[in-house]
Amino acid sequence: MPSQSVHSLITQTPEEGFALAVMLAQKGVTVTQPSEEVRKVLRPAYSTNPDSLINVSQVIAVHFQTVAAANNYWRQWTPYYQ
Amino acid sequence: MPSQSVHSLITQTPEEGFALAVMLAQKGVTVTQPSEEVRKVLRPAYSTNPDSLINVSQVIAVHFQTVAAANNYWRQWTPYYQ
Amino acid sequence: MPSQSVHSLITQTPEEGFALAVMLAQKGVTVTQPSEEVRKVLRPAYSTNPDSLINVSQVIAVHFQTVAAANNYWRQWTPYYQ
Amino acid sequence: MPSQSVHSLITQTPEEGFALAVMLAQKGVTVTQPSEEVRKVLRPAYSTNPDSLINVSQVIAVHFQTVAAANNYWRQWTPYYQ
Amino acid sequence: MPSQSVHSLITQTPEEGFALAVMLAQKGVTVTQPSEEVRKVLRPAYSTNPDSLINVSQVIAVHFQTVAAANNYWRQWTPYYQ
Amino acid sequence: MPSQSVHSLITQTPEEGFALAVMLAQKGVTVTQPSEEVRKVLRPAYSTNPDSLINVSQVIAVHFQTVAAANNYWRQWTPYYQ
Repeated sequence: MPSQSVHSLITQTPEEGFALAVMLAQKGVTVTQPSEEVRKVLRPAYSTNPDSLINVSQVIAVHFQTVAAANNYWRQWTPYYQ
Repeated sequence: MPSQSVHSLITQTPEEGFALAVMLAQKGVTVTQPSEEVRKVLRPAYSTNPDSLINVSQVIAVHFQTVAAANNYWRQWTPYYQ
Repeated sequence: MPSQSVHSLITQTPEEGFALAVMLAQKGVTVTQPSEEVRKVLRPAYSTNPDSLINVSQVIAVHFQTVAAANNYWRQWTPYYQ
Repeated sequence: MPSQSVHSLITQTPEEGFALAVMLAQKGVTVTQPSEEVRKVLRPAYSTNPDSLINVSQVIAVHFQTVAAANNYWRQWTPYYQ
Repeated sequence: MPSQSVHSLITQTPEEGFALAVMLAQKGVTVTQPSEEVRKVLRPAYSTNPDSLINVSQVIAVHFQTVAAANNYWRQWTPYYQ
Repeated sequence: MPSQSVHSLITQTPEEGFALAVMLAQKGVTVTQPSEEVRKVLRPAYSTNPDSLINVSQVIAVHFQTVAAANNYWRQWTPYYQ
């Protein structure tokens, strides 16, 4: 699987925004290690290493911050600048 | 337990916002390691490792920044753009 | 000692804001390792490890960024949106 | 290959913005280790180390945050300040 | 030396702002390890470890971001909201 | 070489802004380890260690975020608040 394209940062819900952040974090790995075969070999190592999991969660958190800002935090009211 | 859904970033209080940040940090781990069984095995390792605990606190801090911004820092006054 | 509650991000001074950031960083550890007994055992390890201390300082820095923004950086003048 | 120049942070799409973030992350490595020969030697090590890959993804995430903000998150509507 | 107090985030110049960021990074260490004696023992270890130095530089960078925002990036012109 | 002074965060181009971010990252190291002699000894170690290089790139990324914001992302149009 090649790295997914990011078409828009706008999502309908925070839940979809979180999924986008996860995708962006994976994309950052995929561009550096494009071989799916190699990534498959590495997966058991980091997915059972608590520190790796925490670091993945950190990358997701930074992307989620970006996505949340892009969506004006999915606030219910219309901001004045729309 | 599957990863919790995030329905909204808006909370009534900073304390609830912090709890949401904790949930988001856990969610970032859960999406990468969906097996509750594996996560249960890893827990004693990271919950007694000071550096892991500090790194978890770092992830929570980034998410709390997002949640706090979403809630306009729970300021008492009504911002002009509401 | 259970983790302290965060009632407000607003503080009178930068110094108090920094203390709040420190409390938030500790809170992020406490929610993951609620046992005060365990945390007491871990303390000598990280408080004498320079890299752990630097990482704690990093978590505080992220929270201080949030608290400083919440307080409009404690600027002396009244911002237009109050 | 010397480090690429960054001419503008403005891109047409989020996908191009992500590519720019990747380039900026590489540029940060290139300025510190300008020798292409040395970097080529190091590549197999970090591209097969899951923790290195996650850390690269983290650097990309920070740059993507900057690029996304520069592009007003590629929102479809024209912001009032243009 | 007890940890220095932070009285204001406002500085006259970027250079003074950077010095403040350095002080805040040190303060984050001092609150966790208040003993000057212990910190003096640790200093040779981290000040000759390149990875520790890079991590210190990272903490300073986060604080400098906060201080720079507080000072409106020391731009020459008067912002409209003053 | 003592650490360089930062006179302004404003630069003419993104490329110059990136160079400033690199200088700020180095400055964060220099204030902690002022001895040029020691830093020269450490250089071969971190400049051939991929993880150190990635971490340096991370510090540059945070500073570039600050510099880019200071320059309003070098957008071509004049923002309303000038």
